[in-house]
Amino acid sequence: MSIHQRLQSLGIALPSLGGPFGTYVPAKRVGSLIFVAGQIPMKEGKSLANGPIPSVCSIEQARVAARQCIINGLAAVHAMGPDMLQKVAGVARIGAFVLSDAGFTQQPQVANAASELLIEIFGDAGKHARVAVGVNALPLNVSVEIEMTLMLSEG
Amino acid sequence: MSIHQRLQSLGIALPSLGGPFGTYVPAKRVGSLIFVAGQIPMKEGKSLANGPIPSVCSIEQARVAARQCIINGLAAVHAMGPDMLQKVAGVARIGAFVLSDAGFTQQPQVANAASELLIEIFGDAGKHARVAVGVNALPLNVSVEIEMTLMLSEG
Amino acid sequence: MSIHQRLQSLGIALPSLGGPFGTYVPAKRVGSLIFVAGQIPMKEGKSLANGPIPSVCSIEQARVAARQCIINGLAAVHAMGPDMLQKVAGVARIGAFVLSDAGFTQQPQVANAASELLIEIFGDAGKHARVAVGVNALPLNVSVEIEMTLMLSEG
Repeated sequence: MSIHQRLQSLGIALPSLGGPFGTYVPAKRVGSLIFVAGQIPMKEGKSLANGPIPSVCSIEQARVAARQCIINGLAAVHAMGPDMLQKVAGVARIGAFVLSDAGFTQQPQVANAASELLIEIFGDAGKHARVAVGVNALPLNVSVEIEMTLMLSEG
Repeated sequence: MSIHQRLQSLGIALPSLGGPFGTYVPAKRVGSLIFVAGQIPMKEGKSLANGPIPSVCSIEQARVAARQCIINGLAAVHAMGPDMLQKVAGVARIGAFVLSDAGFTQQPQVANAASELLIEIFGDAGKHARVAVGVNALPLNVSVEIEMTLMLSEG
Repeated sequence: MSIHQRLQSLGIALPSLGGPFGTYVPAKRVGSLIFVAGQIPMKEGKSLANGPIPSVCSIEQARVAARQCIINGLAAVHAMGPDMLQKVAGVARIGAFVLSDAGFTQQPQVANAASELLIEIFGDAGKHARVAVGVNALPLNVSVEIEMTLMLSEG
């Protein structure tokens, strides 16, 4: 099954990118790697989760948002070219930054939603190294921001 | 001297990994790089350091913990295969996230303990680029989390 | 125009590095990548911006500081060898850590100053993936720390 078929079977439609992006790009290829910029959980122009966890945003909301970050990242890869997503052979690393109240310690539960989606889409090749940390402030007050490093097939 | 002999001479025994890891892997190989997931300072099932520095955790405790993060990361590499650690040719980058009270500014002193151990083990090839920052929250309330990017020998 | 000519035309003189660096290196080459360590906004021995934004440091000050982080990072590459900077073919990724009051959400405005300078210097090849997050504490109480991953030309 192709990645696009896999997304379809999961009920995921890739959004088109907001752009233009001023001063950086949403994804940059370097040899057989793609660095995907830190994604925020925008869906149809609105963030799916705002504010620190758990005082303002619940873990469950943040998990939905983490999933959206991944979808937006894959949309960024798709925007690089019509067959780019199909060339993705796996996921190397994700960095998950979780807007946290001091003392909140369940960043992995939030990041798991992103990791699980990558495995649903890419199978075992979607398993990745991960860093998940709390932060006290994020752009636009979103509750989670996730960057990815993807691997391309050499072919 | 092999890496394993070097570890032995330093009195370091690599722990076996806790696993199974649900949704990500502790280390992922991509060509001649290994991305090691963010490691926390678990030793024999307990964290060596918890809480923000310096109000709850001392710099000295956090340094011991930073060292343990590196040991756990090397254990993750060892778990990839019996000769994988011996193929590590050097260290490219570490990212050190230090649980900090606002106004704490000595993240480098904590991260130095990790950097020093990598140089003890790998010699000059263990010298690496580094980012060390403070954060207000970490998984399980550990005082430090460290990720690594390692280089493999091509042979 | 060479990178050095480009820097000159922008009025940028690369500083010499402070060094020696104890336990890590300011830049590490790995194949066709250079990992540049997290840079802080030191200029002539003093930080250009200290304290959290916006309560202590203004966005405008932090933007000047972000630009200095990039200049210092390029100085680190230059220090690797006399023609190393000329071999840089582009910028893959930057990670911008912005010392933030809780509730500050304009990390991208700060990071943009770094991104814009990279494009001024490297043109389109300077466009990069980026992660920009807030943190509650940074080394020496600087207002911004930026790491880079650069691409080398294969030739």
